[in-house]
Amino acid sequence: MSSQGVGEDCLGWAARDASGVLSPYKFSRRTLGNEDIHVKITHCGVCYADIVWTRNKLGDSKYPVVPGHEIVGIVTKVGSNIHRFNVGDHVGVGTYVNSCMDFNERYCFLIPKSYPLASAAPLLCAGITVYSPMMRHKMNQPGKSLGVIGLGGLGHMAVKFGKAFGLSVTVFSTSISKKEETLSLLGADKFVVSSNQEEMTALAKSLDFIVDTASGDHPFDLYMSLLKTYGVFVVVGASEIKIKPGNLIMGSKTVSGSLTGGTKETQEMIDFCAANGIEPNIEVIPIEYANEALERLIKRDVKYRFVIDIENSLK
Amino acid sequence: MSSQGVGEDCLGWAARDASGVLSPYKFSRRTLGNEDIHVKITHCGVCYADIVWTRNKLGDSKYPVVPGHEIVGIVTKVGSNIHRFNVGDHVGVGTYVNSCMDFNERYCFLIPKSYPLASAAPLLCAGITVYSPMMRHKMNQPGKSLGVIGLGGLGHMAVKFGKAFGLSVTVFSTSISKKEETLSLLGADKFVVSSNQEEMTALAKSLDFIVDTASGDHPFDLYMSLLKTYGVFVVVGASEIKIKPGNLIMGSKTVSGSLTGGTKETQEMIDFCAANGIEPNIEVIPIEYANEALERLIKRDVKYRFVIDIENSLK
Repeated sequence: MSSQGVGEDCLGWAARDASGVLSPYKFSRRTLGNEDIHVKITHCGVCYADIVWTRNKLGDSKYPVVPGHEIVGIVTKVGSNIHRFNVGDHVGVGTYVNSCMDFNERYCFLIPKSYPLASAAPLLCAGITVYSPMMRHKMNQPGKSLGVIGLGGLGHMAVKFGKAFGLSVTVFSTSISKKEETLSLLGADKFVVSSNQEEMTALAKSLDFIVDTASGDHPFDLYMSLLKTYGVFVVVGASEIKIKPGNLIMGSKTVSGSLTGGTKETQEMIDFCAANGIEPNIEVIPIEYANEALERLIKRDVKYRFVIDIENSLK
Repeated sequence: MSSQGVGEDCLGWAARDASGVLSPYKFSRRTLGNEDIHVKITHCGVCYADIVWTRNKLGDSKYPVVPGHEIVGIVTKVGSNIHRFNVGDHVGVGTYVNSCMDFNERYCFLIPKSYPLASAAPLLCAGITVYSPMMRHKMNQPGKSLGVIGLGGLGHMAVKFGKAFGLSVTVFSTSISKKEETLSLLGADKFVVSSNQEEMTALAKSLDFIVDTASGDHPFDLYMSLLKTYGVFVVVGASEIKIKPGNLIMGSKTVSGSLTGGTKETQEMIDFCAANGIEPNIEVIPIEYANEALERLIKRDVKYRFVIDIENSLK
């Protein structure tokens, strides 16, 4: 969450310690190099990983931390070796950009100008994290059935991709509260409260795929029983995986992990969303609301992704 | 393990109770129907599942139980509607034949006459159980690297298929005792004792696939670390599966179960083995040795599959 400041100076909001509290932070970037792209950031999505990093949940955070990895904006300058992007282009930058510490054009995605910049932000982590395994495991076959566990930023995008692919989509949630919206607004076909044994049993061997976006502990064996033979269960959340071997062997089922996606695939997904009018449901907030947004995210109190309006916050 | 007796009478060896002790047992089959094939059984492989069923390990055995599901023999009569098989053909019958209680041609496989009947028996369960997931997960791509956990009937066939597919094959075993034979006789490229941390660490992120044929508890996370990005771990044994989510998510790895294979694929595997000279390593025994063979199987004291010579036992 940084933006162009005076000269080459940048303004971000950083956490200074494991409290994770964000506050304004000024820093400098290098002068534009031949292979650099200079972007005026307009929006940034808020992901649960931002809590992980700002609060040092993995023990490897280095402070100050300026979080944010669903970044979109407008190109303001390009280096002499940049050919794929021009000044005025709408672009996105997702996860793992700084692996080589270069803001190089290979890590930049072109966002069609018809697609709202604010909506593009969540595609760069939430979107690609579900799109990538859905494509890899051939979940884009019309007529097949998809289960989605968890209905946050990732889960609601899985529902939207599923419907765009022509799937029958069943959403599993711990709470009935999201039912009506899931069916009417997101367009899911079924909504099941996972503690309702009767409804769960009725779905036995009915699903071709399940995308699991839940992060809390939950029973894998139960969901295995809902998969058809050769069914695929994709884990993108982070709960411990325990499965009785018979539940994987009988029916030749598959459990697969996935973490974001590659650059080629991310661009493909952005173009697919633009072509099919797929947009995340977002709550746009000013940067001053970021700390409260993170607290609400922990309580899962968001439908379905916070996006910070960087451009207007800084006016 | 039954064979043609006087008239339509058959002789098998059956377990009478959960002790699992096998002894001679006479029974009758129906008169040959229009869609039946009459087979004189010559050989039968011995699988760990025979212990499971004769000793009622799953609680659903109905006595008397005549075990055996790696059955080969020679066609002696065919019904009037049978067109795929002729008298004198060598044929095999594998798992789950009696799902419809018909000994129908759909469940019969043709074994090329050039292929030894005794060697064909273990293909029908041990062979297809590893061949099927290896094909499904594209492990037949020359130059890729395969790990095989456990070196019994299934594991040693996975090694042979791996080499026939042009893979670099590493065998993981709990004991050094099979090392020389694994490298020289089975043709594996590497042999690693799984408790040797140094050797295991040296293999980090080096394998495209792992086929896990071990049935005892063993650490899944350790093997996950040996897989490359997008690596596939196939479970055909029966130990409890516990994986830390990060070990599946980071590197987008896959764990998949598998249970035998379909009829089309089984015929394809038999033909592949005949065309490529792939034969299981077997210890041929008379039927009278069956009880001792089951005891030795429990102790994993077999290289690598017992095959009962039914034909000569009954002379």
